Amino acid sequence: MKVKTLNKILNKIFKKHKLSHKDSLICSNAIINAELVGAHSHGLSRLKMYCERINRKVINPKPKIKIKKISNSITSIDANNSIGFVAADIGIKQAIINAKKTGIGLVGIKNSGHYGLSGYYAEQAVKKNLIAFCFTNAPPAIAPHGAKKSLFGTNPICFGTPTASKVPFILDTSVSVINRGKIRVAARTGQKIPHGVALDKSGKITTDAKKALKGVQLPIAGFRGSGLAWMVDILSGVITGGNHGGKVKDPFDDFSGPQNIGHLFLVLKPNLFVGNYNKRIKENIKRVKRLPKINGVKEILYPGQSKFRRFKKNHKKEIKVSSNITKDLKLLS
Amino acid sequence: MKVKTLNKILNKIFKKHKLSHKDSLICSNAIINAELVGAHSHGLSRLKMYCERINRKVINPKPKIKIKKISNSITSIDANNSIGFVAADIGIKQAIINAKKTGIGLVGIKNSGHYGLSGYYAEQAVKKNLIAFCFTNAPPAIAPHGAKKSLFGTNPICFGTPTASKVPFILDTSVSVINRGKIRVAARTGQKIPHGVALDKSGKITTDAKKALKGVQLPIAGFRGSGLAWMVDILSGVITGGNHGGKVKDPFDDFSGPQNIGHLFLVLKPNLFVGNYNKRIKENIKRVKRLPKINGVKEILYPGQSKFRRFKKNHKKEIKVSSNITKDLKLLS
Repeated sequence: MKVKTLNKILNKIFKKHKLSHKDSLICSNAIINAELVGAHSHGLSRLKMYCERINRKVINPKPKIKIKKISNSITSIDANNSIGFVAADIGIKQAIINAKKTGIGLVGIKNSGHYGLSGYYAEQAVKKNLIAFCFTNAPPAIAPHGAKKSLFGTNPICFGTPTASKVPFILDTSVSVINRGKIRVAARTGQKIPHGVALDKSGKITTDAKKALKGVQLPIAGFRGSGLAWMVDILSGVITGGNHGGKVKDPFDDFSGPQNIGHLFLVLKPNLFVGNYNKRIKENIKRVKRLPKINGVKEILYPGQSKFRRFKKNHKKEIKVSSNITKDLKLLS
Repeated sequence: MKVKTLNKILNKIFKKHKLSHKDSLICSNAIINAELVGAHSHGLSRLKMYCERINRKVINPKPKIKIKKISNSITSIDANNSIGFVAADIGIKQAIINAKKTGIGLVGIKNSGHYGLSGYYAEQAVKKNLIAFCFTNAPPAIAPHGAKKSLFGTNPICFGTPTASKVPFILDTSVSVINRGKIRVAARTGQKIPHGVALDKSGKITTDAKKALKGVQLPIAGFRGSGLAWMVDILSGVITGGNHGGKVKDPFDDFSGPQNIGHLFLVLKPNLFVGNYNKRIKENIKRVKRLPKINGVKEILYPGQSKFRRFKKNHKKEIKVSSNITKDLKLLS
């Protein structure tokens, strides 16, 4: 399906679900971007869920979003249970404004929902020649180090910087070893999963995908990754007023109330301490890229480079829409 | 040796190496703290190196540190090749002042050196009821994902927050799987190292500690850890004006010039967006701690808790000083 056609359909669906024209466009663009960069788990596969949450009144399609200025640098946002895309769009734009004004912009958002890819928001700041951190928490998916029950979300750490080229440096890494989707696929196809990525329900490490699905996923690098996931939960949930400590509801399964996800955006001017940031970052990347490579590696890529290449390749082509998604689109529009 | 005695000796040594009384005290306290929390690799074992760098004029014992106010929130520091402890002490104190004034404090430092433990500085902010990030880079120790040569330092990610208890939450995690000291011990004792932590010099994964010493260490979690190490290099080096991209000199081996390490401190008031942060963080920690535990785990600890316990246990006892260190102390004082 052509991007333009898909955009029209998505817009129509969101408007039918009572979102304003402007908000529908924000949501459609974010979903299409996820498809174009190859992050299908954050794209069309979530559309039905968003609509269902609106129908069940746990996403507010007409939110009264409160934006409170704390200072020229700091803004607090209560998203009134809006769809995450809309809250995050307002949030990152405000953080950019604050950073342009004072050198540093900090925006805390509460009462929001799943906002898609963190990198999508970091990229907006980077395109304005700014550095950005984006934090968000998520429903329980990984077990804290020492526990046999999930509590932290996949809680991504996202950092973006201009690179003095068209391709931004966007690190957007979850703190779980592999995502649940991959374990599901392994369970279906009877493949083993790597050692150390999941526990069975009794709390023992397992390579059996079916047992792993009944157990829990582990954070990257043991206590290190567990600590990073905990940090992100504090930054996105505890600081902002959002849910935290395992209280973020699963958007697919739990319609008992809004998610109240929190997001924290921190945006900086790159030239606060040096006059030639662009030259410096270019040199930095060059030094890494010219290192001798291990066998089989043609090029050392910086974070965000593969995603950018996928985007460039895909945005001229049609978007593949599976038969399940085609059904969803028909049903919802 | 009693803490008080050791402090006197260290002070004498630093003063003999031309540091002011005040700066000597700062260095002695930082080194003793590292010993008390059990981070011996960041304590007395580095004393001789610091003194040698002063003697060889690559650490400036009488630096003229320039502190430039960018705004009420942001400060830029040129440490004039001071010993890292002194630059970092000024830096974190300034970040605390800025945060108290405006809610957010950001301090970038260049022309500094190895400052010991990041957590030591985060803790200073946390004790003032503030949240802190501390970033610093370090000499090449780990290979970027895809490379067979080291470039990134162990580049710690450090985050601290008050917990409404005496024990601060201090995550201070390097992005390498295990430190070089552990590989050295394994090489001496003939033990194997875990799979996936190091490459031999041809770029193949090895569990042979001796081969690993000739090769490179790997970041945690493949491209994820590599991206995090890269992020820290950008934050501490590229942004601040410090060395970066593998140019930070090894303090033990390379006396050809100052290290020009960069540090970045970000400090926040915890109550920017919520009125009850202390209550929220307490609840957050409680929820994690009461999860069911895997076999053999008595208690789920938050980052910083074990370090705090070691400190509490050790600070009443005498500090064990090895015969090598005793020799150093005699030689240097």
